[in-house]
Amino acid sequence: MTDNKQHGTQIFELSKNFVDSLRQIIQEKNEQKAIEVLGKLHAADIAEIYDKLNVKEAKFLYLLLDKEKAADVIAELDEDDSEKFLNALPSEIVAKQFIEEMDSDDAADVLGEMSEKRQEEVLSHIKDHEQAGDIVDLLSYEDDTAGGLMAKELVAINQDLSITKCLIELRNQAETVDEIYYIYVVDNKGVLVGTLSLKKLLLNSEKSLISSLANKEIISVKTDTPEIEVAKIMKKYDLVALPVVDSIGRLKGRITIDDVVDVIQEEAEKDYQMISGITEDVESDDSVYKLSRARFPWLLIGLMGGIIGAWVIGYFEGDIAKYAGIALFLPLIAAMGGNVGVQSSSIIVQGLANHSISKGGVFSRLSKELMVALLNGISLSILIFIYNHFFSDSYALTLSVSLALFSVIIFASLFGTLVPLILDKYKIDPALATGPFITTVNDIMGLLIYLSISRIIFDVLMI
Amino acid sequence: MTDNKQHGTQIFELSKNFVDSLRQIIQEKNEQKAIEVLGKLHAADIAEIYDKLNVKEAKFLYLLLDKEKAADVIAELDEDDSEKFLNALPSEIVAKQFIEEMDSDDAADVLGEMSEKRQEEVLSHIKDHEQAGDIVDLLSYEDDTAGGLMAKELVAINQDLSITKCLIELRNQAETVDEIYYIYVVDNKGVLVGTLSLKKLLLNSEKSLISSLANKEIISVKTDTPEIEVAKIMKKYDLVALPVVDSIGRLKGRITIDDVVDVIQEEAEKDYQMISGITEDVESDDSVYKLSRARFPWLLIGLMGGIIGAWVIGYFEGDIAKYAGIALFLPLIAAMGGNVGVQSSSIIVQGLANHSISKGGVFSRLSKELMVALLNGISLSILIFIYNHFFSDSYALTLSVSLALFSVIIFASLFGTLVPLILDKYKIDPALATGPFITTVNDIMGLLIYLSISRIIFDVLMI
Repeated sequence: MTDNKQHGTQIFELSKNFVDSLRQIIQEKNEQKAIEVLGKLHAADIAEIYDKLNVKEAKFLYLLLDKEKAADVIAELDEDDSEKFLNALPSEIVAKQFIEEMDSDDAADVLGEMSEKRQEEVLSHIKDHEQAGDIVDLLSYEDDTAGGLMAKELVAINQDLSITKCLIELRNQAETVDEIYYIYVVDNKGVLVGTLSLKKLLLNSEKSLISSLANKEIISVKTDTPEIEVAKIMKKYDLVALPVVDSIGRLKGRITIDDVVDVIQEEAEKDYQMISGITEDVESDDSVYKLSRARFPWLLIGLMGGIIGAWVIGYFEGDIAKYAGIALFLPLIAAMGGNVGVQSSSIIVQGLANHSISKGGVFSRLSKELMVALLNGISLSILIFIYNHFFSDSYALTLSVSLALFSVIIFASLFGTLVPLILDKYKIDPALATGPFITTVNDIMGLLIYLSISRIIFDVLMI
Repeated sequence: MTDNKQHGTQIFELSKNFVDSLRQIIQEKNEQKAIEVLGKLHAADIAEIYDKLNVKEAKFLYLLLDKEKAADVIAELDEDDSEKFLNALPSEIVAKQFIEEMDSDDAADVLGEMSEKRQEEVLSHIKDHEQAGDIVDLLSYEDDTAGGLMAKELVAINQDLSITKCLIELRNQAETVDEIYYIYVVDNKGVLVGTLSLKKLLLNSEKSLISSLANKEIISVKTDTPEIEVAKIMKKYDLVALPVVDSIGRLKGRITIDDVVDVIQEEAEKDYQMISGITEDVESDDSVYKLSRARFPWLLIGLMGGIIGAWVIGYFEGDIAKYAGIALFLPLIAAMGGNVGVQSSSIIVQGLANHSISKGGVFSRLSKELMVALLNGISLSILIFIYNHFFSDSYALTLSVSLALFSVIIFASLFGTLVPLILDKYKIDPALATGPFITTVNDIMGLLIYLSISRIIFDVLMI
């Protein structure tokens, strides 16, 4: 029964106590104890501790790990962190202790962060020339393409083999591949002609030919397919691994789902940061300077928008001086314009990201948005009309605010819908439309509409 | 060579032409042609076409599919769509044509959308009692827990078997399991004691005992583990399948990465909709009414905020009547408060979602945020000071605007940081802090700060 106790959820939680005791161990340079503590942890957990350590402490720990685990830990670190950490080590140690045990995609990612000179140094210390060659190959692809995501580790079997021979070949190749998922079936020229699941391999007679068992309906991407496309394909077809081929169909590598999960998350975060007005990929743990820099541009655009808003109001200053009540609703109208615009554009941005918006049909999209705007615009205008009817002493103001609110909601909806669609058409990231520029334009247009309407109404009703 | 041509990227793109020709086929009731066209498509592609068809057209097509593909198509549909489609069919057809071929998790999801009476009807038509029992089991778990995500299809092998016997057992069990990924090793009581990869099975001698090969360091979750936790674990440890156990460690099911990718995406979308002021899970293809309803609450809060803002300004109306220039910067100050607040809170929300913020340390988080706010606040205040120095004729106004802007940035930063941290502490979704309420509070506070400061400065400088 004691055996059962250790099962169930056994997930590592990084606690302050744990970090403190680990620090203690490091200070005492107690290697044996450190090895014991780290031995119980998954590489991902050890990577999580990195944030709490300085480079010297991390060095002490990571050099105690066996090479495979050390490599896994480095692969799990943030790019910034692995760069900083590895730069503190001589290139021979980097090669022998970390890179040699890494999967080729992780190794290429890590080396991609280094200067070219440093890359060459590290590569020169890698004993296995094939491995070094694979890494150099991978470094030649753009980061945000299938080539930049893929690893060279995979199992490829010639279609003319029988299962028996395939198993022998598999044993040779499998050593370097952590998870096989699929066997890729190729012809004599290395062209991908099918896939074979391990399940099929296990369930069929040993004499069957690979070519007769292979699934020939391959879903694959080219080395230059953008990573967003890769993520969409793997998500849509529920794939855990996706083969990558060159322009004449030769198998070049494979992408596994764990890397794509990161892409999906990063995409979502990029859109999120855009809509929150943050221009760089930052995390709350980044430096004060980096955090300020990431936020400054939006604030600057907001400030300039505010100044233009001040011009608009200044143009109507005479009206406000005559009837100060107009000023009461300036922020309300400006804010509603911004809000409605963000709502409209974010729905389009998300729809485009999801592929749930079918291309074309801008007109039908706009007329639908118009209906939504009419519905909300009428309700809100009536509400503010009722409020002002009871609490405002000026009928002209009551009318101006309601009319302006209605017009602003219609304008901001259509503008918020149109801009991301246009950006997307011209292959510009539509998420830009949720950012500062459009919100600011809607703020300003709101003021212009409100003040123009109230000038007309006040002039009509007062004269 | 002709054989090669069909390889490379072969991804289905839904075109208007394709839909038109498919419609044509449906109108002609050309079953043979329809089967031919659908035969070339992946289930996920067929599901994508659903949006373009009415229920009657979909019925014609889906009933032509072989059962397994039909089941896959239904599993790929949006929940709303599959609900609507299946409700148009008699329960016997639902059971026999669709549910019987589905994986248990998909079947439970689809049945979960039906009324209890309808569920019973459909279940009564399922021939395999074990399958029906599995579905009923799964229906008992909460949707957003590991139990609600998991499927019953998995390969479980007793630890006391040899590889030879394991292979025989595997052949029996594998039929119902699409992708095996791992073999789960259990003891006589059904308690999960380890995992075994197919790779290990293939690479070891046939006489080895399963228990000696199994990896005993299992990462598993309980049936009641929240799905967000499941997603975090699978992402962190790069898992493609995760076993689910009950409170005494017995293996109950497994969760595969494709379901978790959806959870990750949904989580990101929820936060995105929150920050864009949309209260329901909507897509741009939803009805006008649903879209309006999802946006109305934020607009209403914005409107109420605007009204409170109007009270605040009304309280200072005398000041504005005396010096209308104050009105010029009302929208600027309100907007900057809102912007800064969203920036601060969204960084915290994302950090909490990522686990990149370590628990505790509210004070250090606030002091860092204060530094960022000081940096940006000082720069922006100086910029607006310079602008007003040249373009404004009132020194009091120039001073008021700069001081107010600085104070608002500090206030909104700290408020925007604190609120999500507090919400998180009390187990409330911190993303609420990026939504309408906080933005509105920051808008109003901005006005209050600005008008108070300018009253003091105008009083001091003018008297």
